[in-house]
Formats: sequence, structure tokens, C-alpha cells
Amino acid sequence: MTSYTVYGCKTGLIKPGDDIVEHILGSAGEVDGILDGDIIVIAESALATAEGRVIRLEEVTPSKEAMQYAMRFGMDPRVAEVVISESDEVIGGIPGFLLCLKDGTLLPNAGVDGSNAPEGTIIPLPGDPNGSASQIRAEIGKRSGKNVGVLIIDSRTHAMRLGVSGVTIGCSGIAAVSDCRGRKDLFGRELEVTRRAVGDCIASAAELLMGEADECIPVVLVRGLDIIIGDGEGIETIAPDECLFMGAFRKTGR
Amino acid sequence: MTSYTVYGCKTGLIKPGDDIVEHILGSAGEVDGILDGDIIVIAESALATAEGRVIRLEEVTPSKEAMQYAMRFGMDPRVAEVVISESDEVIGGIPGFLLCLKDGTLLPNAGVDGSNAPEGTIIPLPGDPNGSASQIRAEIGKRSGKNVGVLIIDSRTHAMRLGVSGVTIGCSGIAAVSDCRGRKDLFGRELEVTRRAVGDCIASAAELLMGEADECIPVVLVRGLDIIIGDGEGIETIAPDECLFMGAFRKTGR
Repeated sequence: MTSYTVYGCKTGLIKPGDDIVEHILGSAGEVDGILDGDIIVIAESALATAEGRVIRLEEVTPSKEAMQYAMRFGMDPRVAEVVISESDEVIGGIPGFLLCLKDGTLLPNAGVDGSNAPEGTIIPLPGDPNGSASQIRAEIGKRSGKNVGVLIIDSRTHAMRLGVSGVTIGCSGIAAVSDCRGRKDLFGRELEVTRRAVGDCIASAAELLMGEADECIPVVLVRGLDIIIGDGEGIETIAPDECLFMGAFRKTGR
Repeated sequence: MTSYTVYGCKTGLIKPGDDIVEHILGSAGEVDGILDGDIIVIAESALATAEGRVIRLEEVTPSKEAMQYAMRFGMDPRVAEVVISESDEVIGGIPGFLLCLKDGTLLPNAGVDGSNAPEGTIIPLPGDPNGSASQIRAEIGKRSGKNVGVLIIDSRTHAMRLGVSGVTIGCSGIAAVSDCRGRKDLFGRELEVTRRAVGDCIASAAELLMGEADECIPVVLVRGLDIIIGDGEGIETIAPDECLFMGAFRKTGR
């Protein structure tokens, strides 16, 4: 029977400057170490912390634009300032959150988060999630001799869904989006649904063990998935015009 | 080490009138049968097929509204007709797809799908996914004596993400949305992210084995997740005003 297993790796608290690969290899010891074909899933907050991307709010001076957003949506103006600087575009907001475009995806507060950040600080997303995934993958290869996939993931809400699930924001070694165009359905016809968000599915599978609170499981190891390793770098995005949600909202002006 | 395993159950082609619980118990035989605490994940297309919800396009007469949508978005008018009748509201569209509101969620074509449907037919979502999940759970309990959770899932795209991932549309026996309000982060402060879409995460974990094509794996068994069984029925939804995406788009008029 086809199957795969998801392991949660407790690492202890990750601090700025930590060697994240050491954390990964250390906790993988409990499951016979890293194996060829494993997929290593890392929470973006842990990576950003290790990379030292911790911003002290007392050092932030809000711009006039940030003050306006903060007033309108009931936010700390310094948080609004960091969110704006992390965004490619602010689309709108609801109390406490701005909806932002960043690297071709939509997300709340551009991924800037105060949870699991030291008092008086906030943590933006890692600076270059794809680059970090690629480096971590190379480093795991060097130290363990194993060929793995590496995903950097975030937890996010989706339109009209309550609660967060997983999305992949950095990928190395597997195809984050798998292309099924040309494949056949049960009746031998070409599929209408053409692409699967494999990276996001793995991210959600990992979220089930990571949690959002004090679980101290920032790394998850996925073993046994029938996925080709070495087959992709980065994450293919969708153009706003091809996105059903953006297209539909823009045309109706809702 | 915390872990869980996901098993894909090959059932063969599911036909209208099939006893889906028999399919489930039969394929679970390969992994020592059903155990207490297992979560059974069923693809909505398989359930809808077993429930006989297969619509012959030649029997559909499109309304004037359906003709207009079909013209505007390049769809088969009969498909547009079924989509409209399955929707609570049509929000807009892009070529080939209408964005619909149904049971408090946003989805393409109201879940009506031609893939994996017999030639000349389309399959809408199951009529009452929560009710079906509840019945299937009770029936599994009766026949196997085991206490399980049951999810009915669909694969969907999300705003500005390329490719489909899993969402839960019917749930019995577990809380599809887990409430973390009041829990503490790594530094002992109350969490800002307050709810986790556990049902959607499990759905995505299952999608990794189900695929979208001719895999013939419409049922997945999730074993070892630390989730309380018996704790929930149905799926909590979000009000449009509390949804960041709906709120932001409505206010900016994009």
C-alpha cells in the first residue's frame, strides 16, 4: 500500500546565528538520520530567526503612510511601517491586518509576525526563502551525503476559509508545483485540473505536527513520498489575470 | 519522535450505488484494518459518484442567465446552468470558470467537475458532505467497532497560488478548525494566530497520495495524528466581513 510518514523534529529554541542544518541533522538522528529522498520542511519563523531577521520595534520610525494604515486598521504604526517595507503592494485591509502582494503571492501583513518573536520585536519572512532552501539542501548534502528536498513554509489563511494551513515560500530539490497537463483521468480523457500545489500540500502535512504555539517543532521530515528529488528550484507563481479570485474580484469591482 | 503515517487505499473504480464503507473496510485490510483514532479521508468525487450524483449534460436545458455566463466566460451553457443551480451566489469569473459562493465558502464552478466523470456527464459536489461524513463514520463504527474521524475533501486553488491543494468540505468526529485562542507562544505570550484549519491540512496531506488523475486512490487513511476523536461535527466557516481577502477586495473595489 502506498504510504508516507511525517516526523516532527524537536529542536529546542532557535536563536539568531544558529546553524539550522546542525539542528536538522541532530534531530533526524532519532529516525536513523537523513535518508535519500527525504523532504525536510522548515518553518519560516525558525529560519528567519536563525538568519537574525528580528526587528526591534523601538528602532522603527513609522512613515506618514504607515500612520494612515495604522489609524485605519487599528495597527501599531511601527508594525505597519515594517509591513509596507516588506510588501510589493498593499491591496487593502481589515482590522489588524493588511493584505499584501509580495513575490507574486497574496498574504496578510507581508508575513511579518509578532508570535514566537522575542518581546518588543517582530520577525519578517526570511530574506530569500528559495536561496536559503537551496543553501540548506546543499549543506545537508555535504554533511550527510544524502539527496533531499528542502521546503521553507509559512502558515496562512485563504479566502473564505477559517484557520491557517500551510504554504511553501521556498523550495529546492523538488517541483513545488507539479504539472499534470496531458495526463488522463479515470475515463482516459485529458485532465481539466492541470496543476497540483505539491509544495503547499507538503507544507500543510507538516503544519499538523508543527502547530502554532510552544510545540518547539520547527522542522518536519517527510519520508516515503514518491517524488523525484533534484527536479526543481523555486516556486512557480500565477499571473493575477489567470487567478480566478483576482480576476473575478477585479471584474465585478467587489 | 512525534509522527503520523498516511496510507493510500486503492479501491478500483467507484460506481453509482456502490457501498463506500465496504470499499474503505476492504482496502484498510492491508494495514491491519481500521484502528481507533484513524482518520478516513474520502475524495468528494468518489462520494458523489457512489451517491449517484452524476448529471447527463444532454438532459440539461440552460437558462438565459447560463447562456450569458457561458458566452462571457467561454463555457458550455449546460455546465454553466448546473454551476448556477449548485451555487448560492456567482461572484464573477475568468475564461472557463465561475467563482461561486456555496455553503459559506468560495470555489470554482461550485465544485462541478467533468474530470473523472463518465463521458457526457458532470459531477457536482455531494449533496450533504457533513451528513455523509457522519453517516459513514457511524457505519464504520457499526461494522468495525472502531472510533474514527471522517473527512470528505476537495482539491481547490487558492488566491494567487498556482495549483490545487486540499480543503475539507465534510467532517465528522474531529474538529475541522482547532481553536488556539488563549494558548501561549514560545515566549509565553498569547498567540495572534488563533485558529488552525486542521481539516484542510489533513485534506492536503491526503491529496499527496490521491492525485488528480487515474491513480484510483479515492480514500486515504491517516494514522497516528494526536487528534481527539469524537470532538466535532461540520466545519466552522468565516463571515465575509472577517475574511481578510473579501474585506480587502470589497473595500478597495478592485
